[in-house]
Amino acid sequence: MAKSEEDRRLSKKAYDAQVPDLRAALVQMQVELKAAPFSVLLIVLGVDAAGKGEIVNVLNAWLDPRGVETVAFREPTEEEKERPPMWRYWLTLPSHGRIAIYAGGWHGEALRTDPRGAAALERFDEELRQFARFEDQLAADGTLIVKVWLHLDRDAQRRRLLELEGDPRTAWRVKPEDWAAHRDYDRLARLAERMRRLTHRPGAPWTVIDAADPRQRNLAVAAALLSRFRRHRRTRARIAAPRPPRRTVSLRPTGLRRLLALPLDQTLAQRGYESKRDKWLGRLHAAVRSAGQSRRSIVWVFEGWDAAGKGGAIRRLTDAVDARECRVIPIAKPTDEEKAHHYLWRFWRHVPRAGMVTIYDRSWYGRVLVERLEGFARDAEWRRAYAEINEFERELTDHGVIVLKFWLHLSKDEQLRRFRDREGTEYKRHKINAEDWRNRRKWHAYEIAVGDMLALTAAPAAPWHLIPANNKRHARLAIIKESCRQIEAALEP
Amino acid sequence: MAKSEEDRRLSKKAYDAQVPDLRAALVQMQVELKAAPFSVLLIVLGVDAAGKGEIVNVLNAWLDPRGVETVAFREPTEEEKERPPMWRYWLTLPSHGRIAIYAGGWHGEALRTDPRGAAALERFDEELRQFARFEDQLAADGTLIVKVWLHLDRDAQRRRLLELEGDPRTAWRVKPEDWAAHRDYDRLARLAERMRRLTHRPGAPWTVIDAADPRQRNLAVAAALLSRFRRHRRTRARIAAPRPPRRTVSLRPTGLRRLLALPLDQTLAQRGYESKRDKWLGRLHAAVRSAGQSRRSIVWVFEGWDAAGKGGAIRRLTDAVDARECRVIPIAKPTDEEKAHHYLWRFWRHVPRAGMVTIYDRSWYGRVLVERLEGFARDAEWRRAYAEINEFERELTDHGVIVLKFWLHLSKDEQLRRFRDREGTEYKRHKINAEDWRNRRKWHAYEIAVGDMLALTAAPAAPWHLIPANNKRHARLAIIKESCRQIEAALEP
Repeated sequence: MAKSEEDRRLSKKAYDAQVPDLRAALVQMQVELKAAPFSVLLIVLGVDAAGKGEIVNVLNAWLDPRGVETVAFREPTEEEKERPPMWRYWLTLPSHGRIAIYAGGWHGEALRTDPRGAAALERFDEELRQFARFEDQLAADGTLIVKVWLHLDRDAQRRRLLELEGDPRTAWRVKPEDWAAHRDYDRLARLAERMRRLTHRPGAPWTVIDAADPRQRNLAVAAALLSRFRRHRRTRARIAAPRPPRRTVSLRPTGLRRLLALPLDQTLAQRGYESKRDKWLGRLHAAVRSAGQSRRSIVWVFEGWDAAGKGGAIRRLTDAVDARECRVIPIAKPTDEEKAHHYLWRFWRHVPRAGMVTIYDRSWYGRVLVERLEGFARDAEWRRAYAEINEFERELTDHGVIVLKFWLHLSKDEQLRRFRDREGTEYKRHKINAEDWRNRRKWHAYEIAVGDMLALTAAPAAPWHLIPANNKRHARLAIIKESCRQIEAALEP
Repeated sequence: MAKSEEDRRLSKKAYDAQVPDLRAALVQMQVELKAAPFSVLLIVLGVDAAGKGEIVNVLNAWLDPRGVETVAFREPTEEEKERPPMWRYWLTLPSHGRIAIYAGGWHGEALRTDPRGAAALERFDEELRQFARFEDQLAADGTLIVKVWLHLDRDAQRRRLLELEGDPRTAWRVKPEDWAAHRDYDRLARLAERMRRLTHRPGAPWTVIDAADPRQRNLAVAAALLSRFRRHRRTRARIAAPRPPRRTVSLRPTGLRRLLALPLDQTLAQRGYESKRDKWLGRLHAAVRSAGQSRRSIVWVFEGWDAAGKGGAIRRLTDAVDARECRVIPIAKPTDEEKAHHYLWRFWRHVPRAGMVTIYDRSWYGRVLVERLEGFARDAEWRRAYAEINEFERELTDHGVIVLKFWLHLSKDEQLRRFRDREGTEYKRHKINAEDWRNRRKWHAYEIAVGDMLALTAAPAAPWHLIPANNKRHARLAIIKESCRQIEAALEP
């Protein structure tokens, strides 16, 4: 090592003098974070031998371990490959009040594919753009994202590798891959630069830190975390609490028009219904089975007015699906753990494996229905949710998941009839409560929100199917038939 | 169908008259269950064509879906095969206040292996005995386990298959496997009988229900669930709340003697420590790596006095392990979700995949230490925990997991010195609180509990390593060395 280089290094003494204050500040940050309505992602990446692992260990030593977790990814497992690529990243997100330190993070996974050639680079870019959208979503939700790139120039990297190798205590840390990466320094540096450029976002910027001096590097990473945290906490403190809208105005009236034009006077006699239903159930059974055989998953989404018959329709479907391949997820109020995450997190959790089926009894659309109308989500939150939902469903359909979305539509009179029936039948009484009556009083506002949902989330690969549901038999048969047709069409070569 | 058979069947009219009351009772049961400190497992099995799937669907229709989940197993996935066999069953257990309906359950998985020949039958029996121990543990923890076997005699099965096949609406339900099972009726019946005999336990008995008449079958299953629930609720209501012991008496004093005999006056100079440590870390790194290559997982368990240096020791270890292969799980107070499960559930969740490492910073031993002494567990609960823990660790080691258990031992004076140091250093202050001082006042009671733990959970495949920890350097080096030796020994052919 050149003398001048040695001079620029921070002495152990000067370092040791700074550490205690820094540690106290980090722990204090954790105390404040604990009560804050957001989580912190610290993503650490860098060139080989820049000390990514050391930084992770140092921070783990400095932070209170009860509020921090370390996440590192490996080659995706079979289970992970069977879901959309972002699935495994979503599942690692910490809950509010906690810090996750990502050694490498998703960006590291993309770099590991080591793309060469135009086609590979195009896939690389596409992956990075997906990461950027992912981080945009998290940042919009309040997550603090701190991304650190540990930099060493070519000479410094060489010196560091020789230094590690020359010391018998650390020689085992240097692997042949590290030298290979060193020989390929320029290309890898360009790749990393490209990665940073495509994922540098307002809510998730990259901080490049010189890692030539390990002590200064440690201090710089901790300082970056602390200063971003302080600024973030101030910004988040200014955000107003959500409140219900005074008046609900349609964003895109085409959906509402479509909804109001739906005829609801269908009838279907009991006679003949069962045999038709069972014929179609047989066909549905075959379709689901053959989807499973081609490793295509199916996601059913059921939305509809209270008492529209979602539960009954779902039970008919499950008659035709092998129970071992199907999960029904009833969506009620989120649990505390779910509330402490991005609202899409709890739906990601249940995305089916290859060839399996998940039926969501209510879904992520709650964000633009009940959360919009009751003021559980802020204005900006439910407004951007349309795009977030489209992104989520696109990730599913891009991965080959067959997404079937049903809105069960009812007339206001028919709902009243069913509410009264529920109140009058002992074993149905638990199905109705004051909230249902409250929702009913907001019928028109809900119509507007449903209309916006239909208009703004109708992706070609995941269209909405409107089901007239005044007649239960008709509705059930229509759902079975439509599901059949959609699955069969999706499986066509 | 013979006329007399038809006569014995329940008419649709009589059935329809009974269903509303039954549904009301089931929903009422769910209301009561919601506030109860236990969960319900309903396991439904039976001969082919007896209507296992129908029962699951009927119950799902009758019950309030928000409190019930359906679980069905398939061939174990890669991820599941990489853990001890019971892992996937543990993870499906519902939390308190909820019902899980198991279509087939673990017993069904054992039957699916279709054992033939003496060796296969012996494995089958061993598996069943493991299920029995599993259910014993759950029952002891208060879980209500209702196991239903749907019976059809050979003729009834044949009639049912023909009936299904003869009706175009249900013909698709009958598969060639069903007829194959029918031809093999006698052997399969003997196998099922053997299964029921080996897993018929006081807290988890089998109820055999005649399934010849589907309507009577549905009523009988619901009635069995209701009556077991009512009895169970009364029994559970009588169980007294836990309270701390007035005096702690040793169960097996050999452990305490071993603990008190441990010399604590080791010293280790700073000079030479780092180079020794790094040499051993290099060796540990190689050992962990080669364990990973042979797909052997490692579980480290760290227990010890407050301020004994568990955190620091763990960070030294993680220096030698690839962060992508290692998770550190700090065990603090259980979350609400964890509290609503068997205490071992939260540790099962983190059992590592093949070739991976989990480090538990405190562990399941809390059950026989803090929970015993603070009265968080009832007397009977912590007393039976020694056997439960041995069973848990045996399932790990039987599966090839290397289990390394360390107790970090400290003198009472050294602890005081460290507490004072923590209080005097700003960034360490969060590490000490009133609880630590309270625990310290119970030093002697803790010594007794630790001694009992050492004596009663020292399995040959998962022994305790006592580490004198008055000197931090000595302790860290001893842990690294001992871990090395144990892993190397476990990997020897």
